Order: sequence, then structure tokens, then C-alpha cells
Amino acid sequence: MVSFESDYTKGAHPKILQRLAESNLVPMPGYGLDPYCESAKEKIRAACNCPEAEIYFLVGGTQANAVVISSLLRGYEGVVAAQTGHVNVHEAGAIEATGHKVLALPESQMGQDAGEQVLLQKSKGKVHARELEGFLQGFYQDANHEHMVFPGMVYFSHPTEYGTLYQKDELEAIAEVCRGYGLPLYLDGARLGYGLMSRESDMSLSDIARICDVFYIGGTKVGALCGEAVVFPKGNAPKHFLTTVKQHGALLAKGRLLGVQFDALFTENLYLELGRHAIEMAEQLKEILREQGCTFYLESPTNQQFILLEDSKLEKLEKHVAASFWEKPDEGHTIVRLATSWATSKEELEVLREALSGTH
Amino acid sequence: MVSFESDYTKGAHPKILQRLAESNLVPMPGYGLDPYCESAKEKIRAACNCPEAEIYFLVGGTQANAVVISSLLRGYEGVVAAQTGHVNVHEAGAIEATGHKVLALPESQMGQDAGEQVLLQKSKGKVHARELEGFLQGFYQDANHEHMVFPGMVYFSHPTEYGTLYQKDELEAIAEVCRGYGLPLYLDGARLGYGLMSRESDMSLSDIARICDVFYIGGTKVGALCGEAVVFPKGNAPKHFLTTVKQHGALLAKGRLLGVQFDALFTENLYLELGRHAIEMAEQLKEILREQGCTFYLESPTNQQFILLEDSKLEKLEKHVAASFWEKPDEGHTIVRLATSWATSKEELEVLREALSGTH
Amino acid sequence: MVSFESDYTKGAHPKILQRLAESNLVPMPGYGLDPYCESAKEKIRAACNCPEAEIYFLVGGTQANAVVISSLLRGYEGVVAAQTGHVNVHEAGAIEATGHKVLALPESQMGQDAGEQVLLQKSKGKVHARELEGFLQGFYQDANHEHMVFPGMVYFSHPTEYGTLYQKDELEAIAEVCRGYGLPLYLDGARLGYGLMSRESDMSLSDIARICDVFYIGGTKVGALCGEAVVFPKGNAPKHFLTTVKQHGALLAKGRLLGVQFDALFTENLYLELGRHAIEMAEQLKEILREQGCTFYLESPTNQQFILLEDSKLEKLEKHVAASFWEKPDEGHTIVRLATSWATSKEELEVLREALSGTH
Amino acid sequence: MVSFESDYTKGAHPKILQRLAESNLVPMPGYGLDPYCESAKEKIRAACNCPEAEIYFLVGGTQANAVVISSLLRGYEGVVAAQTGHVNVHEAGAIEATGHKVLALPESQMGQDAGEQVLLQKSKGKVHARELEGFLQGFYQDANHEHMVFPGMVYFSHPTEYGTLYQKDELEAIAEVCRGYGLPLYLDGARLGYGLMSRESDMSLSDIARICDVFYIGGTKVGALCGEAVVFPKGNAPKHFLTTVKQHGALLAKGRLLGVQFDALFTENLYLELGRHAIEMAEQLKEILREQGCTFYLESPTNQQFILLEDSKLEKLEKHVAASFWEKPDEGHTIVRLATSWATSKEELEVLREALSGTH
Repeated sequence: MVSFESDYTKGAHPKILQRLAESNLVPMPGYGLDPYCESAKEKIRAACNCPEAEIYFLVGGTQANAVVISSLLRGYEGVVAAQTGHVNVHEAGAIEATGHKVLALPESQMGQDAGEQVLLQKSKGKVHARELEGFLQGFYQDANHEHMVFPGMVYFSHPTEYGTLYQKDELEAIAEVCRGYGLPLYLDGARLGYGLMSRESDMSLSDIARICDVFYIGGTKVGALCGEAVVFPKGNAPKHFLTTVKQHGALLAKGRLLGVQFDALFTENLYLELGRHAIEMAEQLKEILREQGCTFYLESPTNQQFILLEDSKLEKLEKHVAASFWEKPDEGHTIVRLATSWATSKEELEVLREALSGTH
Repeated sequence: MVSFESDYTKGAHPKILQRLAESNLVPMPGYGLDPYCESAKEKIRAACNCPEAEIYFLVGGTQANAVVISSLLRGYEGVVAAQTGHVNVHEAGAIEATGHKVLALPESQMGQDAGEQVLLQKSKGKVHARELEGFLQGFYQDANHEHMVFPGMVYFSHPTEYGTLYQKDELEAIAEVCRGYGLPLYLDGARLGYGLMSRESDMSLSDIARICDVFYIGGTKVGALCGEAVVFPKGNAPKHFLTTVKQHGALLAKGRLLGVQFDALFTENLYLELGRHAIEMAEQLKEILREQGCTFYLESPTNQQFILLEDSKLEKLEKHVAASFWEKPDEGHTIVRLATSWATSKEELEVLREALSGTH
Repeated sequence: MVSFESDYTKGAHPKILQRLAESNLVPMPGYGLDPYCESAKEKIRAACNCPEAEIYFLVGGTQANAVVISSLLRGYEGVVAAQTGHVNVHEAGAIEATGHKVLALPESQMGQDAGEQVLLQKSKGKVHARELEGFLQGFYQDANHEHMVFPGMVYFSHPTEYGTLYQKDELEAIAEVCRGYGLPLYLDGARLGYGLMSRESDMSLSDIARICDVFYIGGTKVGALCGEAVVFPKGNAPKHFLTTVKQHGALLAKGRLLGVQFDALFTENLYLELGRHAIEMAEQLKEILREQGCTFYLESPTNQQFILLEDSKLEKLEKHVAASFWEKPDEGHTIVRLATSWATSKEELEVLREALSGTH
Repeated sequence: MVSFESDYTKGAHPKILQRLAESNLVPMPGYGLDPYCESAKEKIRAACNCPEAEIYFLVGGTQANAVVISSLLRGYEGVVAAQTGHVNVHEAGAIEATGHKVLALPESQMGQDAGEQVLLQKSKGKVHARELEGFLQGFYQDANHEHMVFPGMVYFSHPTEYGTLYQKDELEAIAEVCRGYGLPLYLDGARLGYGLMSRESDMSLSDIARICDVFYIGGTKVGALCGEAVVFPKGNAPKHFLTTVKQHGALLAKGRLLGVQFDALFTENLYLELGRHAIEMAEQLKEILREQGCTFYLESPTNQQFILLEDSKLEKLEKHVAASFWEKPDEGHTIVRLATSWATSKEELEVLREALSGTH
């Protein structure tokens, strides 16, 4: 039995475990004041090409989103996000629990017209500059907007929850709209490594650091046991951010656990290497899926693929391969997600091929 | 340089690291649904002698406190705690951030009279049944209590922030008061292992599970990299507690990280062994301190000791030993905390002895 | 200059002012414990035909919504409402400020098909049983629903923000869905008087009290200076609701101000009389609009009408009549709202007619 | 039966009711945009001698406190207040419900020494500059202060909950401490009129406007039906404060109700006249109490007096006079509060005298 259920089914990259073991009995101060955190921050600053960046290591993505968003918003503000954005749907109301509304942009209409199937696929789950601008204009033109939640920042994930990607010009267009309205732009990089190494990506970490006001580099899904590095690239962290982190229960006593991991991830390009591996595996996965005649619900340029299967075929597949249920478009069919990761092996892909071809 | 600064200066017990390495590449479901979490829960249920316990693994103590407390309180209720309780002082307002007041009991008056120095020391940082009852009676007698925050549960830490301990009869008296007022009793066990193995302890895990409505078994400070096991011993977890955990950003995607660690800690009594070791080291520490003529500000039966030092002596000490600043009672003196842990070695104690005696 | 801007442009019905004056110097206890509050509650219980109702007087609608909703939801729950519902759009995030998400049902698709213009109009702004059920089913079928905000209650306004009305069978169908999922049903009755007296209404106050779990009877927009009566018809108010009211800053020290007003409103049927008057005026208003060839954007059976005007015509109108800007569908046209109220006079209607006909 | 229970047992000053009646049928825009609000603001600016003041009318005191405090604090900050401050004790956790801790200063030690009974009385319920400074210094010296709630502003009530008063130099000393730490100073003026007109007061409204960063002028307890005027004297209201007010359910649709009342209160000095009257009545009350041999628990220079009565005497008193239970110091005695107000009459005082002397 192999698993393509998600990119967090295995532990950590062996180099990470090794470093944890090596450093294990060295006494270090708590709460992120250890030398590994310091070293990891330096390496991230270098990788992002922003020497003034302020960096905080948090444990998980929902936590990072809640802490960052609530620290940037004023009480009367909400965060603008795609309808399908993680913060709007799959974080159990973590943003609202901090008192703020998620201002959901309706699902993108880009490419809704006939014959634009490709554009539609590429748009899935994304915020679009033109639509964002329309939303913001509409807000300020509304005679009653003082009775409404003010847009206070813009959230997006890259890659998105559907594995889709922003191009640099798209992101710059969004950033320009944000600047026009004075809104910080925040990138949720839970799977950032897989985005950066996609064959369709035209952005580097330093592009992201230049364009965004804050972002996090996802560790949990890209080779770490846990951990996300929140980066304020212009040294623009909110005042007393550490206290805010603590208040949200997001400050690890043994901060070294995060420092050591990110230090390993940003040593000798490991983070990008892991991203590259997952992308290579994803390209092979797509080939297998095409070869086996599978129908793509969404063929993404990153590590997540969504396919439509007849239920009978799915049943057979699941004897050998764990996949992630996505939705049920009709009786008789199911959409499932298959994800590769830093840890996917060729052997696992082979099992999948055989399971699909029925030779298993 | 050795460190007695805290009980979280080193990584994890080697058996934990070993298990993480062994299980590392086995694919497992996320969010705590893996077999290690299941196994760890079973072992904890056995250790607590409560087969119906519901158990959740969270990452840290502040997080555990905020999640448990906010899930148990109604909107109009607050949590009763000692003035010096962790939730009242050192969690950056994490409880208030969930909308609830900490109802701080004034520092205990037990043993305030002359000649009761010992009782006073033993009372430090604790909630006392009689004083708790007085507070609750006073609340309900107050003609304006409907304009006040209702006491909704009682929080205490065991051992306390000062290393002091509850005796079984003390805790049963508190629990009886709580039952009388319908208040759940919650034990913060960040250092529970060190409390259970104290020579003055007359309680086992199963006593605690019997007396309290909810408690957490601290991993971070007792040998784990991170992690606290929240136990609802009577199967009395609030409905949809997992969703509440998620909402607070406290649900680890790779829940295995916690499952593997607690499985190791509750295999062959490791958790209690680690507690015992720290206590033995603490007893030797106290002997050294006495032998070196140190003045105890608070000599505790657990792993934390508080001593009063002349600043000149402290300065010398700090050349070889890291200690934790506690407070400055006057010009010329400082109170510092020295903590042992599961990882304290005899060699480290020897360094401390030499540093104090000036033979270093 | 006359105003049809809203139903809260004038003060209070003279009988209310008179009672305030009469009772002014009688000393009474504060916080709603005065005899007028008691008497008003008795009269409302009678009018609702529910002798066990628990009733609380709050000052305004946003406040009532936030207090009721946050007191009924558990931390992991949100309130289901129409996309266009007041709590979702025009209360500045008051619900989210209490930590809860508004789960917005997409705008109704009922009557979207060609030729169903009438049904579409009647559906505007409403929750529909079938769509609600679809939403709830979808939620529980979602494999990830434990990572999502649970639906915890259903909110709707009657009349809606568009002046549309529920029929008794529609409401009973919604209530049945709610019961099936264990969700309290909450009616926002900011304009309830105008709904009850609409010619299309087939519900009485006692129907509403029977069908809903909680509702409020709007005073501010139906003849009072301020005030909304929150009714828990089955004596089902959340425990210590008064303390919750106080906590939200919604407990008036001089509760008599609300008691006296509602006592007046529920004496000799005044509340319904005021409703009837506004409806009569609205019927005449609609006649004038039709007679003057106005295009209805939405012709409602209650006191709010929405018309589409050429901007040039609007400009002329606004020299004599204040209307409320609604939206701008295109260059050259504007949708405005015209509202009648308990205080609208025939003379004011006449001014409107002349302004529209250009004879002014 | 007469009542000295509180200063909110009667309705409104007749001039206020008269204005409400006169303006009743004039249509006006809602939400505080009416000409009465505008006029009232102008008059208050003049009375405070601060032409740039931004002023908002809210309905009640708890609401005003929660809105002002939560709008001024950052997420990691709390509000410093006296242990006995209204926000800390009698507002049902309204501040904590917005996510912020009340940092309670222990009850003042000023005048604790023998022979300083008078100073002790004058200090009751107050914040003292020296003690405040000590608290703030201690906070920043604490090595762990980043894990604690930062002091973000200072709250005090004037007069206090015990009727005590600040002198101008006391307040200036507090303000200086605040400036030193960058903390806004906020005055809760629920009974401000009674403070300003106390014989011991050496401050005018313009002194208060000069010294404080924000304050509210209490209407509810000083002659209005409801309403408090929040004043930001230097035009320093937080951005989009109106939206914050709306979010807290504190924005009255018929804002005119507040505008008309404050316009009346600030016409021809009515507000201060009402204050003066209550103070005169309080002075006569104190004379009667002394004459009748009552023991003062706290004899205040404003409108509230606290006396210690034998229970038997209290029982007789309560046949004719309603008083407010304060506390029960021992079996056999009770402390009660007697309050005068803008509406207290000589006849009522006479009833009290007779009730105390037993001639009734």
C-alpha cells in the first residue's frame, strides 16, 4: 500500500533528523533564542535576498495565518481572500475566532467563457488583480461602507489549494492594487517549495520577498516534521510580534526544534531540492495518469493533481494506493486528489501505474 | 558552561529520537489519526487507569490552556486561578484573547502568621480549598454578581510555577468545592512528571485522573521535543473538540510527531523514569546549595529551586552556570531559579558545586 | 423636503413620548427590573400567545443580533445566513467580532430560470428550505468538515433587507430542516411590524413564536426611539443571558426607557396599528410609482420599494424628496430605496407624486 | 417611599423630554448625522475648550468603555485600572470579551499607615501616579515581560466608584507617567457632572480635556435617559471609529435621541446645573447622616455616600427609603450606599431624615 493522499504522510527529510540528533544534548535557550534559529534566519535572509527581513518560526499553517492576519488587521478590518482560500474554508474559523471577517472574493469568472477551459483551470483558486480591484472599488463606492467590514489586507496561497500557480506579472498586478489601497499582501506558502520549483514558475524566493509584505515558507509539507517560517521581508513585523505569537499559543518553548529544521532546510539548497524532487515525481505522475487514460479534473503545474474516476475504478485503485477524496460530482464518479512530496519514490509511482492499469 | 536555567534547554530523550527515526518513512494519515497516536492514547489510558479517557495531543502548554479553558467556559464565565498562575501572568493574555477573564485569587494568606514560614513556603503559588470556597461564596452573595464574570472552572498547575506540590487531600478538598459549585477542575501538568515523582508526592496519575475533570500531561518539559497530552478522564471532552483544536491553530498536520513521542514516553514507564531522574538530581542540587551555604528563597520538593544570592556571587556563578533570573528583592541581591530536568547530569551538578565554592 | 430615505427618520409615536413624560419622575429600579418592563413583557407574552416566553429589551438591532447569536453558538459554530443578510453585510463584522463566522448561503437560485421573474423577486434576500438543506447535507458529507466551521444556528430577517416576506409554509419548512439538524432558528424582526401587516402576510406573532426558537420584535423602525424586544418563546433563554447582555454593553441602566416604550407599543395593539399604517402608505406609494411610470427594481409587499431611475429624473426628485441610494447598475441609472413608516403622511406621498410628475 | 439607591432611578430632566417632543416629527438622517448631534458636538467642544475634539455619542457606559478601550489597544496590550475599577469588576468581562486583559493595580496602599484615615478615604478606588509608575517600571524590568500582557493605556473613573475625586495635580502626575510610557489616559466620566461640581473639585471640563487623551461625559446618570459623549479632545479618534462603534452594536439608528439630549444638556449650562444640584443635595444628605449619628464607611465629596448601619436600623429605614446594599462587614451590620442625583428633592431628604430619626 502506497499513499498519494497528501504531502504530509511521512516524517522529515533524513538530514533534518540527523541534525536534531546531533544537536540534541546541547543546552540552548528557549523560545527561539537559540543559535540554530539565528543561523536559520540568516540563511533564509540570504535565500530571500532581503538582509533586513524579520523572521519568526511557527509550528503550523493555520496558526501562522491566524497570528499574521490578526496582528496586521485593525479591529474594523477583515482579510480579503479567494472564496476557496484555506483561511475561508478549512481552518475551522481560526480567523473569525480572532474577531475578523474573511472577505471572500467570489470564485473567479476569468475564463468562464466557452473555449477558455485552459484559462479557467489556471485561474482555479486564485485571486485576480482585476477582480480584486473591482471588489475594492465597489466597497468604497458603497454608500454604506462605514457599516461594513473594511478590507484590511489580502491573503492568497501560492501554490493555491488547487495546486495552481501565480505568474510574476499576475502577482505584481495584485501587489499594485494592494498598494493603491494601502493593503498588505500576504502569501501563504504552505507548499511554497513546490510552487518555486514548478516548471511553470517564473518566480524565485527573492521575487516573492520583493513583491509581498509578508509570507511564510512552509516546512511541514516540504520535508520538516513541523514548522513554518514567517518572513517580514522589509523588517516590517508588527511591534511586539513575539508577544502576539505567545498569546496565540504559537511560541515553542524548545524553539530549537524549528531552528534546527529550517537551518537544515536552508543549508545547501535542501528546501529547493525537495521541491524539485516532488515536482519531478508529479510530472511522472501526470504522465502515468495520462497514459492510463485518466480524466483530469484539474491538472496542476505543482504537486497536486485532481482526477475524475469511475467509482468502480477508484475501488480497485484503493486496494493499493491511498488517495484523497475531493468531491462527488455525480453518482458513479469521484474526484480524488493525488499528491507527490519530497518523499515520493519511483517505486510508489510504479505501484500506482500498476494499480491503474490493472496489472497489479 | 552548564545550564540550570530551565527544564527545556535540551532536546528530547534519545529513545524518542530513535523512534522518530525508525518510523520516519512510514506513510501515516495526518491530524492525529495515525497508529502511534492511537497507541500512545491506549498507553496513557492504562497509565491513568481510565479506559474511557479521551486524549488529544497538543503542541504546547499555553496552547493547551487556551484551548481547554475556552472550550469549557460559556461566554459569561471566567477561569479561577491563583494570582501567580501561569495563565494569569505568563501567557501574554492568551485566555483573555479567547474572550474570558482570569479570576485571580489573591495570593494565599495560608501561613502568613509569624512562625509559619514552612507552611507559607508550601502554600506558595497554590489554590487553597478554603480560600477558593470563600471566593465563590462571596461571588454569589454579591448583590451585583449578575454584572460580574461568573466563575466557570478552576485552573491550577501541579507542580506550581514555584515548584510547590498539592497533597492528595488538598486536591480532593478543592475538587469537592468545585463539585459544590458545578465547576470543572483543570490541572496544568506542564511539569507533571516532576510532581508525580517528588518524594513528597502522595498522588499517582490515576489519582489525578480520578480527582480532576481535565488535565494535561506535559511532554515539552519532561523529555519530549514538544507536546502535551490533554486528558478528559471520564470521556468528557467537549463536543467537536478536534475542531476547536484546529480553530486555535493547535492541530498538527503531522500528528505522528506527537504520537510517536508520547508512545515512547509511555512505553516501559519512561515518563516516570525521566521524572524520577530530575527529582534525584534536584535532591542533589539542594544538598549542594545547602552545603555551599546558599539561602533558599523557596526550597521546593520538585525540580525547581529558588535561591537568594549576593550579586557578586551571582556574577561569579554565571561564568560557569546559566541560571534563570527571578526577581531583584533589593540592591545587592538577586533571586535566581535553578531547575533540573530529565537530562541533568552529575557532571553538571559538579560544575555547579565548583562554581559556587569558588574552586572552579 | 420630505424623506422616504428610511423608516427611522422620525422620533417616536406620540403615545410613547407621552408615557415617557408621565412616568418620568417615578423612581424605579434599573437594568430592566422596573414595573414597565414587567408589564411590557406580560403584554408581549400575550400578543405572542406564549406565556412562558423570556423577554429581554435591548437597544438596537446589531446589538441584539450579536448578543443572541454569540450566546447560542458554541465556539466551533457559525451562523447560517443569506449572503445578503444584515449580519453578513451591514453590521461591520459584529458577529465575527464575537469570534464566529457567518456561513453565507449563496444568493438564492430559486426562480433563476427564464419566465420566473416573479418568483425571483419574491425570493430576493431569503433563505430557502431546500437550499438550506442542500448546504447542511453538503457540510456533513464533506470529508473535511471537522476542519470547517459547524453550522450552529440559522438567521433570517423577516421582512428581509429587500422587503420580501416569508409565507408560513416556507418558514415551517425551514424550521423543519433546522430541527433535523438541531439548529435553533432565529428571526431578526427589525421591521417585523411591517411584515406582520403586509397584505401578503399569512403569519401572526403567535405563528412566529411557535415556529422560531428566538426572535426580536423591532421597535426602532416601528415607532420607538430605540429598542428591540428579544423573545425566547419557550422560556429557552441561554443561562445567565442578562450577564451576556451586560457583557456586550447592551444592558441599559435606565431600562425603563425600553420598558415604557414597549409597554406603549403593546397597549391597544399600537404596534400592529403602526405596521398597518406603514403598509397602507406603501401601497399608495406603489400606486404612485406605477402611475408615474417608474420601473420597479423590486416591488415588495412591505414598506420598502426599490426603483430604477434615470439619473436626470433622480436629480429632479431629490430636490423635494430624500431617497436612499441603493446601487448603480450602469451609467445613467440609479436604484433607490423608498421606505414608508409608521410616521409617513399622505401629504408626504403627495409631495412625492408631484416631484415625480414634475408638477412641483 | 423614596429612593436613594442610585442616580439612575428617575427618567430625564424635563428640558430633555421637552426637546425630544419638539423635534419628534422632523425627519433627520440616522446614525448620528442629524443636526442635533452636530449642534451638541459644537457645544461640547466649546464647553471643553477644544475646537478640534472629535465626539461620538454612545448609549451606555459599559459600551463606551469596551468600544474606546478595544479601539485604542493593540492585540498584545491590556488596560491598566484600579482593582476596584468598573471595567475590572462590574462590567461582566466586557473588556476581556474584546480580547484584552484588565491589568488591575492592587488596591492603593496610600494612607495605609495608622493615623492616615483621611488620606486612606480620599485614596479609595483611585489610581495613584507613584503606584502606577512602580507597576510600569516593574513590568519593563521583568525579564519575562515579553510573555506578559503589555500595558497599553490607563483607565480611571472620575469620580470613582466610591465617589472619591482626583485633584488636578494628581491627574497631571498620572498623565505625566502615561506620557513617559506612551500610554493614552482615559477617563470614565459616568458621573462626571457630579465630580466637576463637587466642592472639592479644582478641575473644569477644559482641564480634563487638556489632561486626558480620551474621556466620556456621562449622560445616563446626570439627567439623560441614556447616552454618553465620548470625547477625543485632540481630534485623535482612532481611524474609522464609527465602524468600530457599529461593530460593537453601539451605533444608534436614531442617533437624534442622543443628539437632542446632549444638545439640551449643554445648552445654558444645564449639565453643570444638574451636577450642582446633586452636590447640594449630597451635602444636605451628609449633614442629615451626621446629625442622625450615622457612621460613615466612606464620606465622599460627590453624590455617593457609604454608611455603616446596624441591621435593625437598616430594616426600619428601608420601610421608607430605598438604599443600595454595598457589603456586609459583619453579622449585625451592613454598609449601604445612598446617592443623590440631578432629581433628588428636599422632600426626599426630609423623608430620609425622618426615617433615620424614627419620627416617621
